[in-house]
Order: sequence, then structure tokens, then C-alpha cells
Amino acid sequence: MALVVQKFGGTSVGSIERIRAAARRSLAAQRDGNRVVVIVSAMSGETNRLLRLAHEIEVVPDPREMDVIAATGEQVSAALFSLAIKAEGGQARSLLGHQVKILTDGAFTKARIKAIDGSKIFETVDRGEIAVVAGFQGVDERGDITTLGRGGSDTTAVAVAAAIGAGACEIFTDVDGVYTTDPNVCPSARKIARISYEEMLELASLGAKVLQIRSVEIAMKYGVPVHVRSSFSEAPGTWVTGEEKSLEEVVVAGVAYDKNEARVHLVGLEDRPGVVAEFFGTLARQNISVDMIIQTASSGDGSRADVTFTLATTDLARARPLIEETARRVGTREVRYDEDVVKVSIVGLGMRSHAGVAARMFELLAKEGINIQCISTSEIKVSCLVAARYTELAVRALHDGFGLARETR
Amino acid sequence: MALVVQKFGGTSVGSIERIRAAARRSLAAQRDGNRVVVIVSAMSGETNRLLRLAHEIEVVPDPREMDVIAATGEQVSAALFSLAIKAEGGQARSLLGHQVKILTDGAFTKARIKAIDGSKIFETVDRGEIAVVAGFQGVDERGDITTLGRGGSDTTAVAVAAAIGAGACEIFTDVDGVYTTDPNVCPSARKIARISYEEMLELASLGAKVLQIRSVEIAMKYGVPVHVRSSFSEAPGTWVTGEEKSLEEVVVAGVAYDKNEARVHLVGLEDRPGVVAEFFGTLARQNISVDMIIQTASSGDGSRADVTFTLATTDLARARPLIEETARRVGTREVRYDEDVVKVSIVGLGMRSHAGVAARMFELLAKEGINIQCISTSEIKVSCLVAARYTELAVRALHDGFGLARETR
Repeated sequence: MALVVQKFGGTSVGSIERIRAAARRSLAAQRDGNRVVVIVSAMSGETNRLLRLAHEIEVVPDPREMDVIAATGEQVSAALFSLAIKAEGGQARSLLGHQVKILTDGAFTKARIKAIDGSKIFETVDRGEIAVVAGFQGVDERGDITTLGRGGSDTTAVAVAAAIGAGACEIFTDVDGVYTTDPNVCPSARKIARISYEEMLELASLGAKVLQIRSVEIAMKYGVPVHVRSSFSEAPGTWVTGEEKSLEEVVVAGVAYDKNEARVHLVGLEDRPGVVAEFFGTLARQNISVDMIIQTASSGDGSRADVTFTLATTDLARARPLIEETARRVGTREVRYDEDVVKVSIVGLGMRSHAGVAARMFELLAKEGINIQCISTSEIKVSCLVAARYTELAVRALHDGFGLARETR
Repeated sequence: MALVVQKFGGTSVGSIERIRAAARRSLAAQRDGNRVVVIVSAMSGETNRLLRLAHEIEVVPDPREMDVIAATGEQVSAALFSLAIKAEGGQARSLLGHQVKILTDGAFTKARIKAIDGSKIFETVDRGEIAVVAGFQGVDERGDITTLGRGGSDTTAVAVAAAIGAGACEIFTDVDGVYTTDPNVCPSARKIARISYEEMLELASLGAKVLQIRSVEIAMKYGVPVHVRSSFSEAPGTWVTGEEKSLEEVVVAGVAYDKNEARVHLVGLEDRPGVVAEFFGTLARQNISVDMIIQTASSGDGSRADVTFTLATTDLARARPLIEETARRVGTREVRYDEDVVKVSIVGLGMRSHAGVAARMFELLAKEGINIQCISTSEIKVSCLVAARYTELAVRALHDGFGLARETR
């Protein structure tokens, strides 16, 4: 009998009625002849409520105790989900992280899964019961409760699917799949039927927050087919699977944008070896990642250079004093900051075999009169930094220019 | 270094502010040179909130899943309590039932503790940390989460104290000790400084709901001194300890009353062997306990008898059809019911060595014109069933008549 993993997110178990509806879906999958393993998140809002309690006591609470508190959200969901299956006439059993057991490292609040013992799950499904596993939580070598960080239930689902060799991992969520771009920005966006792990990784990291990145990495590593779909409809969603070159003629699979970018412009930097490294070394030591970097000569004699780089807006407050201090030390004429920027990216496996994709992107932006401030490229992605006011214009121009628009009906 | 167990009930951890106050008490005990183990209940109202969720799904939810849900209340309290100790500058660590481990049988929602492994607790307190153990919960042989039933945190506290050989078990609650009778009924009631386990058992089962009965049984079995006291004051409460005959000149330690009694009167029962057994056998098979029983001849020729017995009012609806059916079968002239009754009891170890205590009780009631409907006695208790309207009058007469009244100040 086939093994299927179904993961239900916070909104999909957000009320007793929704839990019932989700339970009926799991029972339907079982009636279709599958052994079913369910992974549940906490009811939406619950994790925040629990963590607020902890923060009332201390501004920065002990992470070990935070995890003890946070894990109860999924514990309650798992038991309620099992009760709902029983109420619908089925058989089910909740399993917690320490019962399964989902062994993680000891990095509380952001633990990583090291191993999953499938035996309790098999014992359960082989008895004809649906195994309802609490997502997001695990247990370390010492028996302490750990959690996997926000969105960790996706990771639990894919990791469990990999560990038990499930045929597919269904991720039920409040959107009906992965779109070619943000439908709020671009009305012609359409649902993607199939996308590769690599493309999904690039889209996810750029803001299409449908699946937690780590879960996609695990799915790719173990070749678990993931089906992202709506818990409120029967329509198929998006399959995230291994690369299938036969299928793809499309060069670009999707267009993403990220407003969490700030540009730093170092003007008139002394152009001698090691100066640029000083800046990035200082930031790296504080765990601040730099994204795009360009360097240009700024003086005729070549003794001075301009360097522009971007970092996450959320890191800027922390980065600023480090940058200023380094700028003074190594000799810099001026430092300018700009937070009114957006990074627009096109992503597609097809780029590997198609030349001129980047050039086409620049041309599409130029036609709209959009100035490009920085460029970065990878094998399957090209990103351009542009002024934030062009976000919608740029996304639509690229989306429709690369032929992603929905056919008019 | 002495070992102390402190248990904080639901109202004592009912808010973040109260958790902080309780944490300060534990730290004070540690500063006094003790190794401290804390047992916590769920925040007041939390267990009911959780179980309501389960009941929304099913009227009679699966007990295994009920326990998975209910146990989260204490899990959250234990972690919040640990955080509060850290916020006050101390060191602490939460420990759950499966981490300690508190091994129980598999009777979900009313499990009994079989063994407690003290090693995790000793590891923790020997590092100078306060061990904060989640009350009410355990784990069975299969690793399933169990709970001990309402008030189970008292049992956890006393059982942990016994397992680690603690010098005392402090029960912090919202009353300041055990009283000679209900102060709401009898204004002259006073706090008892010391009471024996046996007396406490009789008082607890009669309605002085300060300590869960099972916890007193365990305390008695292992000789754990229990100190019941208020979490809102520094005043000493009531010590529940082993019998100290030297100390006690008092014959009666306390007066209890129980309104959960219904009287059943079987009139004109055929007086032949086995008839009475028919009634009580039928009830016993349905797990309905009968309390007081009296039989009197009702006809001159001895062929008919009257039998009166009492049972819990809460069992009456279930018992009634069984009684009627049996009455028809064995031949009974009439069955009468009376729920307007109360059982008033005097309890005291001193009765063992003092004659005439029961007689004095009847005399005190008679002096108030109170008719006694039934009587039952044990070694350290005498109970009388009287009309419910006499509750206050009877309790006050007995309380003051046996010299329990507070000295006038």
C-alpha cells in the first residue's frame, strides 16, 4: 500500500471546523488505498500567543524553555486532529517529536533534524490507523524538546516523507499553489503546475513564501515529490519535483521580488588590496550577509574606487556603525545609504541552455525606463536592483515579457 | 543540603505576576540552603480551556488524546516558572513527565504512578539549578503521555518527595491551611497547626478539599511530611504528618459535612436471606457505592423489614432504575428517596482511646432538636445523616461542643 504524507498548516487547522475538514481529507486518502501520515502545525495564532507569555517574563527568554512552551501548540493540534479522525469514524493516533522520535541537534528554536525513526509511524499505519505527527518539534540527544524554527512543520513533513520513503508529500496550505509571480502585484500571474526543486529554492528565498526553504532542500536531497495545494479546494496545486528537461521549453519559470534590500554606496574608497575585504570581513564576523557587490573606478588615476553592495534592510541598523567605523579606518570619502530599492529576479532552469536571457531582462526594464543599479546572476537566476517605486512596473514587464502571462479566457 | 519539594497550584501560577511571586519563594528556599524541586499545576482555567477544545470535537473524546492535550497545561507552566526563576537571577530547568521520568500505568486520565526516576532531578539540583517538574503528568511503559486526574499535581509532588527522600513537601495553595471545619459555615473555625495523615484522609474524603486524597495516602505510606500553606502569605499553614500521640489531648480534630448524599428508603421489604444483597450487588456491579445502611423490622410478625441506605447524589440518576427494578423483583411495598440530607462527621485519632465520643455527638445534636436518620462509625470517625436544613446548626453545635472553637481574642 502506498505511503502518503499530508501536512496541514496553521490556517488549515485554525478552528475545530477546519480540523474536521482536514481530517476528512486524510480519511479520503486512506480510503483511496494509502497508508496516511499527517503532520500538523499549531492552530494559527497559537504559537504567537504562547511565545508572548514567555516574553512577558523576559525580553530574551531562555531558548530551551521557549521550545518547551512552543512545542505545546503542535501537541494540542496533533491530539485534536486524531480526535477529529475518530469522530469521523476513522482510527488515528497522535505522535509527538519525542515519541516518533525525531532526533535533532541541540540548537533550541532553530534545531536541525539529524535522524527520524520510522518504526512508531509504521507500527501505527500498519495497524490501519492514521499517524498524526506533531510538526515543528523534535528531541535532542539529552531528551530535551527542540523546535525547528518558523515554518518548521514543512521540514518535519518532508523529512518524515524521506525517512519512511513516502511516495509524495502533500503540503496543504491557504494558497492553491506556487505562482509565476505575486498575483497581488501582477494580475496575469498564473499557477505553476510543475516546478523543479532548484527553481523553487530560488523563488522561495526571494519571497514566494509558500514552502520553507529547508524543506525544499531536504526534498531535493532525497527526491521527495512535494505537492503544494489548497486545503480549501480539491483542485491540484503545484508539484515540486526533480528536474524534467523534456517538459520545459520555458526559459523563465517565475519572477520574484524582494523589498528587504538596502543599498550601501562607498564613495571614493582608497583602491589598495584588502580594503574591500575589510568591510565584508567585519560584516561577516557579525553574521551579516552581503548580497550584490559592484566596484567601479571613481577617479581618473585609479587611486580611488566606488563600491556598492546590498544587504538585508533588517540588518542595516546593526551593520551601519560597523560600516562607518571601517570607512573611517580605511579612508572613504563618503558613505551613502538607500533603502528605497527592490531586487527583482527572474528564475528558470531553462537559462542554463538559453543565451541572452539576462540581456532580454535588461532590455525589458530599459523599455519601461527603469534604471538598473546592481546586477547579480547565478546559473538559474538573474537579479536586478532597481528603485522601489518601479516594483510593480518591473515585475509586470518581466512577467509578461517572458511569456508567463495567463492566457486570456 | 536538605531537599525540599514545593508544589504550586493553579491559582498560585494563575498569572505571570503570580508565577514571578512563586519563583521568588523557591529562590528564597534555595538561598536558605535547600536543594529545591518545584512541582507546578497548569495556570488556573487552562486545563478546562484545553479540554473544552477536545469536547467540541467529540462528546466522549478518546482518553489517550485527552491526556496529550491536557498535559500541555503543566508543560507551559513548568517552562514559564523556569523562565521566571531565571528572570529573578536564579538557575532553573523544566522537566516533563517523560523526561523525569514519572512512570505510570496506562489508565489514561486517571493513571497511577508506578515509579519515579530521581536521577534527572538530582542531576539538576546538584548543579545548583531549581528543578521545575510539570505536575499531573506521566508516561506509561509504551511512552504514551498519561495524566493523574484532577488535583494530580498534589500526587506528583508527594510522590516526587517520597522518591527523592525530600525532608518536606510544601503545598502552596489559595487557602492558608486545613481548618477544624468549613469557616463559611462556622465562624469560629480555626486553622489546625498539625494533623495526622489518617485524620486528613477522613476530612479530605468528607469535603475539606485542600489536598487530593491519593496524595495523602502516598504521604502516609512513605512518611512524607506535608505542609499545606498559602502562596499569598508567609504564615505557616497546616502540617500533615505521622501520628504523634504525645501531642494530642484533643479527641476530635475536625468536623466535616457532605451534601452529596441521597437517602433511599425501602419500605416493607420481604425479610428473607439474600434480599438486601440483591440491591447492593446490583449497584456494586454498576460501580455505585453505598455509604450508610440500616435495617429495621417494619411488621410485627418479622416478615417485612425497612432498609435505609445512602449513596452519592451524583449517582442517584443512574441508580434509580436499578433500585426500582430490583424492588419489583424481590417484593417491596414502597421506595422513597430523599435528597435533602447532609452527612455530618466528627474526625479524630483521639476517639480510639476515648469512650463516649459518639454518645456525646448524639447528645449535642439532640440538644439542638436535630433528628438523626442514619449513623455510621469507623475507628476515628462518626457520621450522622440529618436533614439538610440543619447543616449549619449541626456543624456549629459539634464544632463548639467538642471544644474546637477559636479562643476569643
